[in-house]
Amino acid sequence: MFIIGERVNGMFSDIKKAIQSKDKKPVQKVALEQVKAGANALDINVGPATADKESAMVWLVEAVREVTDIALSVDTAKFSAMKAGFEAAGGSLILNSTKGDDRSMDQYLPLAKEHDALAIILCIDENGVPSNVEGRVEIAMKGLAKAMEYEIDIEKIVIDPIVLPANVAQDQTKKVMQAISEIRSLADPSPHIVVGLSNISQRCSNTGLIDRTFLAMCVANGMDMAITDPTDEELMNTMITAELLMNKSIYCDGFLEAYYT
Amino acid sequence: MFIIGERVNGMFSDIKKAIQSKDKKPVQKVALEQVKAGANALDINVGPATADKESAMVWLVEAVREVTDIALSVDTAKFSAMKAGFEAAGGSLILNSTKGDDRSMDQYLPLAKEHDALAIILCIDENGVPSNVEGRVEIAMKGLAKAMEYEIDIEKIVIDPIVLPANVAQDQTKKVMQAISEIRSLADPSPHIVVGLSNISQRCSNTGLIDRTFLAMCVANGMDMAITDPTDEELMNTMITAELLMNKSIYCDGFLEAYYT
Repeated sequence: MFIIGERVNGMFSDIKKAIQSKDKKPVQKVALEQVKAGANALDINVGPATADKESAMVWLVEAVREVTDIALSVDTAKFSAMKAGFEAAGGSLILNSTKGDDRSMDQYLPLAKEHDALAIILCIDENGVPSNVEGRVEIAMKGLAKAMEYEIDIEKIVIDPIVLPANVAQDQTKKVMQAISEIRSLADPSPHIVVGLSNISQRCSNTGLIDRTFLAMCVANGMDMAITDPTDEELMNTMITAELLMNKSIYCDGFLEAYYT
Repeated sequence: MFIIGERVNGMFSDIKKAIQSKDKKPVQKVALEQVKAGANALDINVGPATADKESAMVWLVEAVREVTDIALSVDTAKFSAMKAGFEAAGGSLILNSTKGDDRSMDQYLPLAKEHDALAIILCIDENGVPSNVEGRVEIAMKGLAKAMEYEIDIEKIVIDPIVLPANVAQDQTKKVMQAISEIRSLADPSPHIVVGLSNISQRCSNTGLIDRTFLAMCVANGMDMAITDPTDEELMNTMITAELLMNKSIYCDGFLEAYYT
């Protein structure tokens, strides 16, 4: 499982404050904690900290790049901020994200290609998030076709089926899991699948339990990437165990510890 | 999820001792604990307590029937003990189990039909447990055909794909999950699927974590019954959450407590 650490995000008050006061220390501390806990990449999102998304993104990327060479998932809905973040980071990049309509993909995918980045394509188009499995799979198929048009390897494409909170769109949860399984079957090699895990339990009770149960169920359906907080030990233990049960790692009595070595 | 409580089993020392000394109290205590914790049925297995399987089964069934009317899963590989257990229990029965070869099914399924019992068919035939998905699905198909021959409703058929320990047959785990998904698609309505959950973590470390992670993954594939210990609260919470995420119950902030009411 490829874990994108979610904590370098201006949505969290410590990061928001750091961005506003241009204090690198808290950002770098959080970044290193995420890496130490098992993140394979770090999401970089300025969130609501400032209206000047471009310079805040460059500052945030540079702050993190000073302490780690890990892959950075530049997370913004503003193309100019994405471009600025990509240029500041140098290499090892994830484009997070483009919507799955032609207009968005025609803008974002060439940038991903230029930087040899993984590209996350959201199952959202002009009509919003599809309410069924078929709509999600259709957007994913269009995404794969568009990747081929731009000569991007399918292994570089990551589909996000869009997880909605279980307390407001409960019927969508099972559909997301079915979509994961079907999207994984669209091509060989398969596109990657990522979810923003905490979305599932937003404003729910028992968030940890819901997150890790959903994680195991998504792994059973073929999900191989998640944007989440690797410092949640119970979550990570569930993920390690789920991948073991999918035969992706070899059992030994110390399989939890072995994951990190 | 239909939970068959696993604890009334002579494999456990308290039950073994109770069978040998014909002391109903410990048996009835364990039975009521399982029911209170959320069991929908109780497995009844004399285990290695005695060579006289028939009279021990009758004694065990009668001891449990004195305190609860819940469904009983008469669990024995000896036909005469199954028959004796069924007669002692009266109604509300689960036949646990028949192998999936013709000779076994021709013996056991008529007994299930006669008592209107759920019938668990194991994915085991003359050649043992299949090492692949296809072999399991083939045995399940034969089981469904045999059920039709005996005019048993498919809703009365429960397929056990046979879970092997993750530390000795790790590659089988994913195959069992795939088999669950495929067997559920064989008919509409689907046959039920049951697993003996603790088999997956036999002699493993982190048994609780493995059991509940595997449970969530099997639920994601369509499993709807499990032989397990409902007094394991973390396991039950995972099960309740997994079924919520499959949209089988309605979300409310007290969804864990609501399960039991």
